[in-house]
Amino acid sequence: MTGTLTPDLQRDLAATAHALADAARPEALRHFRTQIASENKLETGFDPVTEADRAAERAMRAVLAERRPDDAILGEEYGHSAGTSGLTWVLDPIDGTRAYIAGTPTWGVLIAVNDAEGPVHGLIDQPYIGERFEGGFGVARLAGPRGETPLATRAPRPLAEAIVMTTFPEVGSPAERAGFEAVSQAVRLTRYGMDCYAYALVALGQVDLVIEAGLNSYDICAPIAVIEAAGGIVTDWDGGPAHGGGRVIAAANSRIHAEALELLRGR
Amino acid sequence: MTGTLTPDLQRDLAATAHALADAARPEALRHFRTQIASENKLETGFDPVTEADRAAERAMRAVLAERRPDDAILGEEYGHSAGTSGLTWVLDPIDGTRAYIAGTPTWGVLIAVNDAEGPVHGLIDQPYIGERFEGGFGVARLAGPRGETPLATRAPRPLAEAIVMTTFPEVGSPAERAGFEAVSQAVRLTRYGMDCYAYALVALGQVDLVIEAGLNSYDICAPIAVIEAAGGIVTDWDGGPAHGGGRVIAAANSRIHAEALELLRGR
Repeated sequence: MTGTLTPDLQRDLAATAHALADAARPEALRHFRTQIASENKLETGFDPVTEADRAAERAMRAVLAERRPDDAILGEEYGHSAGTSGLTWVLDPIDGTRAYIAGTPTWGVLIAVNDAEGPVHGLIDQPYIGERFEGGFGVARLAGPRGETPLATRAPRPLAEAIVMTTFPEVGSPAERAGFEAVSQAVRLTRYGMDCYAYALVALGQVDLVIEAGLNSYDICAPIAVIEAAGGIVTDWDGGPAHGGGRVIAAANSRIHAEALELLRGR
Repeated sequence: MTGTLTPDLQRDLAATAHALADAARPEALRHFRTQIASENKLETGFDPVTEADRAAERAMRAVLAERRPDDAILGEEYGHSAGTSGLTWVLDPIDGTRAYIAGTPTWGVLIAVNDAEGPVHGLIDQPYIGERFEGGFGVARLAGPRGETPLATRAPRPLAEAIVMTTFPEVGSPAERAGFEAVSQAVRLTRYGMDCYAYALVALGQVDLVIEAGLNSYDICAPIAVIEAAGGIVTDWDGGPAHGGGRVIAAANSRIHAEALELLRGR
């Protein structure tokens, strides 16, 4: 996928991604765990999460205007801006706004750069903990409060020994929920509530599967880049490309991916 | 409750609690997110979580043998040791072992000291993030990666605006689950998967309610101390003392506690 991108361009894109994450961090953190973030927006007329979301995306767009003015942008808050380079930055300034409201450090800033075929580099950044998961251009690593760690997904193991995650037990439609539950009943442990952090845990080799439905493109492009760089695989529930969003399965390896897909297919 | 404890004794107990948490941290972290922690213990004959759990409790017991030899101890791993002072240390070296296995930073080291009536001081420590929630003897604070913050629970709000947490959607027995769901259906947002971290979020003023069943004493004594110091209330589902474990409701304030209890009572 990255064959047409020169090493110089790859370095520039990776450096730009880090500059975007650095710019987003203070804006995303500004209202996290503050009193105002827990007020009812109907009463105060102020929605602090949306405000932080927008401020973080504006900060990232300012960096792109300076460093990569010819690239397109798809952002959760400000939509699509056309470009001429064939590259698109896909930005979710605060993925997991409900986690953000509840004060859990499982939301993240998602940054990906896509070529025509999909994501080529991505970051999952958790500003409160100070963790940044990076994947692409030969790099797969976590920089966090305990230093740097290489990212590598888990080796194949039987589904009965696997850990699966999804954010909400409802998952999606009744049919989608039934698909998820078929997998959940076959595994060792199901955990909820992790938002984009669940994808980071697949890349880190802690979790075998993440299964979700109803995603947007900007929810999944960065996780795809990080997980694939770490040796995993991310597709839709029919085994096709997932970077457009929808129903997504992220797997530590192709064997457990195939086993889980068998239970999801045709739902 | 703390009337009979002199200021000197209170200072000594709080300092001892911090010494316990400091001693537990490296032991609890030793196997977190390591390859071995994700292996099947049936295959390797080694259970790294239990090993970390035990090592952390041994480290804390060594501190108590040195500093507070006359106090009793109730620990998750090594049970009850009698004392003569009338004070009991209640220790859960790794609360949330399934979170630990999955790599989520929502487990914690729980440390409480109880007198005859219940907890008088407690710590919820999250070693990976580097967060310590403390409550008791006039102190209610978080020390974390972004500095120190006072802890204060949320002001009363209608149940329809509240955030409720529990770790597993199943909660407990079918009757217990029905009780939880009655509350869940009445609130604005239900989130899962946070283990002991959910109680810390009540103390931090982010979450209104945590509702769980089937707890042990060592799961809840530290959260009680921290939440009560921050202005909240923790009882069983009938409004009685919760430090013995069982069915527990932690609430930001007495008004929302009463509203939720109305839906749980008699289940």
